[in-house]
Amino acid sequence: MERTDGRTTNQIRPTTIETNYIKHPEGSVLISVGDTKVICSASIEERVPPFLRGQGKGWITAEYSMLPRATEQRNIRESSKGKVTGRTMEIQRLIGRSLRAVLDLEALGERTVWVDCDVIQADGGTRTASITGAYVATALALTKLVNEKKIEKLPLQDSLAAISVGLDSERNVLLDLCYEEDSAANVDLNVIMTGSGEFVELQGTGEEATFTHQELLSMLASADSGIKELIAIQQQVLQLVNETDGEEEK
Amino acid sequence: MERTDGRTTNQIRPTTIETNYIKHPEGSVLISVGDTKVICSASIEERVPPFLRGQGKGWITAEYSMLPRATEQRNIRESSKGKVTGRTMEIQRLIGRSLRAVLDLEALGERTVWVDCDVIQADGGTRTASITGAYVATALALTKLVNEKKIEKLPLQDSLAAISVGLDSERNVLLDLCYEEDSAANVDLNVIMTGSGEFVELQGTGEEATFTHQELLSMLASADSGIKELIAIQQQVLQLVNETDGEEEK
Amino acid sequence: MERTDGRTTNQIRPTTIETNYIKHPEGSVLISVGDTKVICSASIEERVPPFLRGQGKGWITAEYSMLPRATEQRNIRESSKGKVTGRTMEIQRLIGRSLRAVLDLEALGERTVWVDCDVIQADGGTRTASITGAYVATALALTKLVNEKKIEKLPLQDSLAAISVGLDSERNVLLDLCYEEDSAANVDLNVIMTGSGEFVELQGTGEEATFTHQELLSMLASADSGIKELIAIQQQVLQLVNETDGEEEK
Amino acid sequence: MERTDGRTTNQIRPTTIETNYIKHPEGSVLISVGDTKVICSASIEERVPPFLRGQGKGWITAEYSMLPRATEQRNIRESSKGKVTGRTMEIQRLIGRSLRAVLDLEALGERTVWVDCDVIQADGGTRTASITGAYVATALALTKLVNEKKIEKLPLQDSLAAISVGLDSERNVLLDLCYEEDSAANVDLNVIMTGSGEFVELQGTGEEATFTHQELLSMLASADSGIKELIAIQQQVLQLVNETDGEEEK
Amino acid sequence: MERTDGRTTNQIRPTTIETNYIKHPEGSVLISVGDTKVICSASIEERVPPFLRGQGKGWITAEYSMLPRATEQRNIRESSKGKVTGRTMEIQRLIGRSLRAVLDLEALGERTVWVDCDVIQADGGTRTASITGAYVATALALTKLVNEKKIEKLPLQDSLAAISVGLDSERNVLLDLCYEEDSAANVDLNVIMTGSGEFVELQGTGEEATFTHQELLSMLASADSGIKELIAIQQQVLQLVNETDGEEEK
Amino acid sequence: MERTDGRTTNQIRPTTIETNYIKHPEGSVLISVGDTKVICSASIEERVPPFLRGQGKGWITAEYSMLPRATEQRNIRESSKGKVTGRTMEIQRLIGRSLRAVLDLEALGERTVWVDCDVIQADGGTRTASITGAYVATALALTKLVNEKKIEKLPLQDSLAAISVGLDSERNVLLDLCYEEDSAANVDLNVIMTGSGEFVELQGTGEEATFTHQELLSMLASADSGIKELIAIQQQVLQLVNETDGEEEK
Repeated sequence: MERTDGRTTNQIRPTTIETNYIKHPEGSVLISVGDTKVICSASIEERVPPFLRGQGKGWITAEYSMLPRATEQRNIRESSKGKVTGRTMEIQRLIGRSLRAVLDLEALGERTVWVDCDVIQADGGTRTASITGAYVATALALTKLVNEKKIEKLPLQDSLAAISVGLDSERNVLLDLCYEEDSAANVDLNVIMTGSGEFVELQGTGEEATFTHQELLSMLASADSGIKELIAIQQQVLQLVNETDGEEEK
Repeated sequence: MERTDGRTTNQIRPTTIETNYIKHPEGSVLISVGDTKVICSASIEERVPPFLRGQGKGWITAEYSMLPRATEQRNIRESSKGKVTGRTMEIQRLIGRSLRAVLDLEALGERTVWVDCDVIQADGGTRTASITGAYVATALALTKLVNEKKIEKLPLQDSLAAISVGLDSERNVLLDLCYEEDSAANVDLNVIMTGSGEFVELQGTGEEATFTHQELLSMLASADSGIKELIAIQQQVLQLVNETDGEEEK
Repeated sequence: MERTDGRTTNQIRPTTIETNYIKHPEGSVLISVGDTKVICSASIEERVPPFLRGQGKGWITAEYSMLPRATEQRNIRESSKGKVTGRTMEIQRLIGRSLRAVLDLEALGERTVWVDCDVIQADGGTRTASITGAYVATALALTKLVNEKKIEKLPLQDSLAAISVGLDSERNVLLDLCYEEDSAANVDLNVIMTGSGEFVELQGTGEEATFTHQELLSMLASADSGIKELIAIQQQVLQLVNETDGEEEK
Repeated sequence: MERTDGRTTNQIRPTTIETNYIKHPEGSVLISVGDTKVICSASIEERVPPFLRGQGKGWITAEYSMLPRATEQRNIRESSKGKVTGRTMEIQRLIGRSLRAVLDLEALGERTVWVDCDVIQADGGTRTASITGAYVATALALTKLVNEKKIEKLPLQDSLAAISVGLDSERNVLLDLCYEEDSAANVDLNVIMTGSGEFVELQGTGEEATFTHQELLSMLASADSGIKELIAIQQQVLQLVNETDGEEEK
Repeated sequence: MERTDGRTTNQIRPTTIETNYIKHPEGSVLISVGDTKVICSASIEERVPPFLRGQGKGWITAEYSMLPRATEQRNIRESSKGKVTGRTMEIQRLIGRSLRAVLDLEALGERTVWVDCDVIQADGGTRTASITGAYVATALALTKLVNEKKIEKLPLQDSLAAISVGLDSERNVLLDLCYEEDSAANVDLNVIMTGSGEFVELQGTGEEATFTHQELLSMLASADSGIKELIAIQQQVLQLVNETDGEEEK
Repeated sequence: MERTDGRTTNQIRPTTIETNYIKHPEGSVLISVGDTKVICSASIEERVPPFLRGQGKGWITAEYSMLPRATEQRNIRESSKGKVTGRTMEIQRLIGRSLRAVLDLEALGERTVWVDCDVIQADGGTRTASITGAYVATALALTKLVNEKKIEKLPLQDSLAAISVGLDSERNVLLDLCYEEDSAANVDLNVIMTGSGEFVELQGTGEEATFTHQELLSMLASADSGIKELIAIQQQVLQLVNETDGEEEK
């Protein structure tokens, strides 16, 4: 079976991560997953929200947005509407929770990491691309804290990536759905996993449909292979940055 | 191992569903799951939202709220804040999606079912209790449509219930978490299933923690047994209503 | 003349007050006045709003809301609209002012009593039922403060109840209007009085109509008799709670 | 007993009504009641709100606002806050209801009268001054409709005025309270009456205090005499306008 | 060429400034520029916004609003809309910036001047009339500070006035546009200048049109003459107040 | 005199315009002016806002936003605040007005062009870069309409570019201010001009300062030279696109 863009059912889209994409944030990337492009930035603030003050630990929080014309049809800006939609809230809460699962908040110290994921072009999987990119932006920002001797070592317990997997109308398992596939899918499962292969979040949804235990296992197996590829791309990109930094210091 | 309220790890809380709890809605229940109490009502509106007009199919949507003092600490009303929180949006989107998975929207015709889940007392699991109760309220409202000859038969493809299952700090699987257990849990998995045992939604979250593939399977097995018990309670309650209605008609 | 529900013109609806209806608030009741049902809760907060700090006196404030399907037609939630309607504001300001007339704020000390009145089923007179119920919930919460030795004696100067009275299209005085009567009434007068028979608030409104001095006097006389009955019900309920508490302590 | 501004207990403040104060509205006045000054305007719109369409009757609605520095302390604008306060809503609902009691909505035809009451200087009694002024502005706007032959005769069933009366701390009845008196009063009663002496609205409030049946009667008697004076001033002003118009036509 | 109101192209409208128009603000005026009438008030607050605390300097800020029926068509109140329009924001930012250009913030000390410009009747040029009036209201409020010995001398570096100038469809330069002229103009230039003839703000806009360098120079020359007239009126008014104050003190 | 980045006083920053930067909009560019980078997109909607319906002419409107970390300090999102700031409104109104000055709305037909300017990296001059980029994005979108034969020829009457010019504290005229220069400038003048050298908008502001007629002339001369350079860059970019399109068609 061939997919609309020629991929096999178990193949991820071409994925690239361009580091330090914008100059002001402590860490930033442009992640491209097929035609989905997200600017992820990580900003360090030297204080924590009120509910955490004086506890010696840090915080990480995320915001997510789309440019109005990131999509086929132009969307009204949430700032014009005067409120953030339920979909946006759900996504930014998911990104924040996922990052908190791998970040050692005690080791971070009384600091906040603000992660911003701004989708400039959307073609399905914007929330998973945001998480995969946000991990790298966060790692870059934290590396800066280490280089500035503000913390001793990277407060990251593991790496983190996310991917979607779905069932099409003929119950085929498809990995890394593009927008067209996502719209047609009966079931959509977002899987967020660590580099060591544990689950951080699992969000499976039948779109006016349901799925069996066996189908769940097949989707999880496919997601697992995709996550491994994404983790490899992240590691490669981060290693490159570190090597370049090393050379620059010489 | 004994739980704070004396239950075994795989035991659900005492669950009752009182039908026709308030008089105006087409269907309503008060569901009690331990100390969690939710008024669920289903209202029928004889028209659909603009995006569905003229397509001959219906819609179901849900809203969720808590009384300010449903909880140990009083919460500020969302109407006073002037906006609905991300948590509320996430929950009401979940309830609506779940119900759409078992409702035959074509058979419903151009009508909207408005489901309201108002938590009057909270002790953990309010979203899952809301779904389990909302299914019954919806079934009651739809039965009324059938009795009024507006539709031929119940447009429900299956029954629907929801339960939470978690991992405590010693990695025990606990079914149907109360608030105290939920606060202490490392992992929290909300499972929404049909009467025929298929998944509708799966939302697993590590709270600053992760979980393995094996732990996922253990949690799913426990949830499966809990869902079966809930479905049985729902069927019993709905049968009673039908019998009473039958007698009244004689 | 017989009313739609068989009452005489000067007869109040069957009224019951169920105490400690929900478990978290310091005081709570479910008040039923005919088919109008309101959950009233009183929460104690050990601080006062900024404008009262350091003055050694307390505060009491009220919020009022209706479940969307408390009424014949479903109402849009105020949290969805993003603002509280004028009607709601008027009612919650009225409840708060009325309670302040009988509460000794100095004797309360630097505490706030938050009163929440949530209408779960509406059939006219929801604001007056809220006040009558709120008084009992507040008395229960304050009794708890006394039992916990936080204050010496109940800081209540008098009891408090509220009732509506109206003129129908034939200028009959009707006591305790249900929704159907209220909709048809030409004049509607809400009377809030103390146990010793003094006025706390008086809100008389001609609905595209006016009323004479003599009609006002007739309505006040009718309201006075209704208030006496409500005060008696409140006293009975509160005495019962005190006796039960007394027995429990033995 | 002498009052702070030298008046007797039963004496109203110097009251003037300047007609056609601003040029665009169909009717407008500047009413001055002592140092309280309100611009009242009445605008005619040739259509009704959706809920009245096609019923052949009109509508009248009111809005009320204060300039930020109408008061001793500057108030934050409601437009800056992003919402209208409960006090404002209560007042504008009161003004609208009062006017509806004397306006014949059928005779008005499918039109809306928008009444705007903008307080430019406040010294107590702004809501009652607004009603007294709004009646004149409305009468002027409706006269214009008659002059333009859009309606046959003035759709006003009676005239309308409003005044406050209160009890001071020594239980004296004081008519037409200025701000200083209002702040110190124990009881505040707003009385809205027609030219023929019937009540339209009655709003009596004990400010952390109560009042007896006898005190109510004394306050109503005082209000009655004040209303008569205000009605006389209104009639004189409206007659003057009509005479001037008559002369201009010659 | 004659204008709609008989003025020459280079003639300003009749302009009057009535001082101390309302009693509560430290300084206030009613400025009338033709049929445009604006109440400008200046309120002194003895503290500065958070971003300026402890820096020994003051702040001046402005708010602008229109009564709903200041205009030919009634406008919806911004408080009802729940937000301030872009036009209002632009104007109030302009008024504030303009005043800051002539006010010595250090000499003012840690105080805030709140300027409120409320248009009660609009006939074009409301923003420029607001600035011209706001300067006088501010000067009056600051004079009061001097009289109360809170500051040594007036912290004003220069006087300030504003005027509009435009190009009509035949490219004539028109000074001080009324509403009808403004609506028909191709180009609209708002000029804010000091008494010594320097520019504070220049806002030139082609309304679906453009303008040449030469036309700009002609408009600036016309504006310059208008500003000089307005400054003279301001000086005369302020001198009168000072003389009256001087006499009163004797 | 040398500037912080080595430019002469009359030299613009390196400016590039990358066309068709994102795939969904009918026209889009990434404009870079020094370190200021803005994504400008133009979307065509086949209908006009209600106030223009049935008049046979089109509309163009603009929105402007910044990514939270486009700046040195992270800004709170306007969607989180629930409202658009005054600065944003001012800028997007300016962009829209400027484009309307060169677009032939009749020739456009009943269509709306939505222009979105999203600043992804800010270093001063974001509003002028937005206008310069928006013109190109709009030209690309309109060209698409021509190519699709929806309109006969480009409905653009002229080209359009914008630049800032300022006075530093030593009264030097500086062209195209970067953020550091802008913050230190006494006077800031934004100039929007057409390709034929006419003014579209002129916004000159003294930042707690003023400027003379002579200084205005010097600033305008400098702006004029900068605009000419920007227009040349735009023309080159648009020609390239047309040539490529031409080749592709062959």
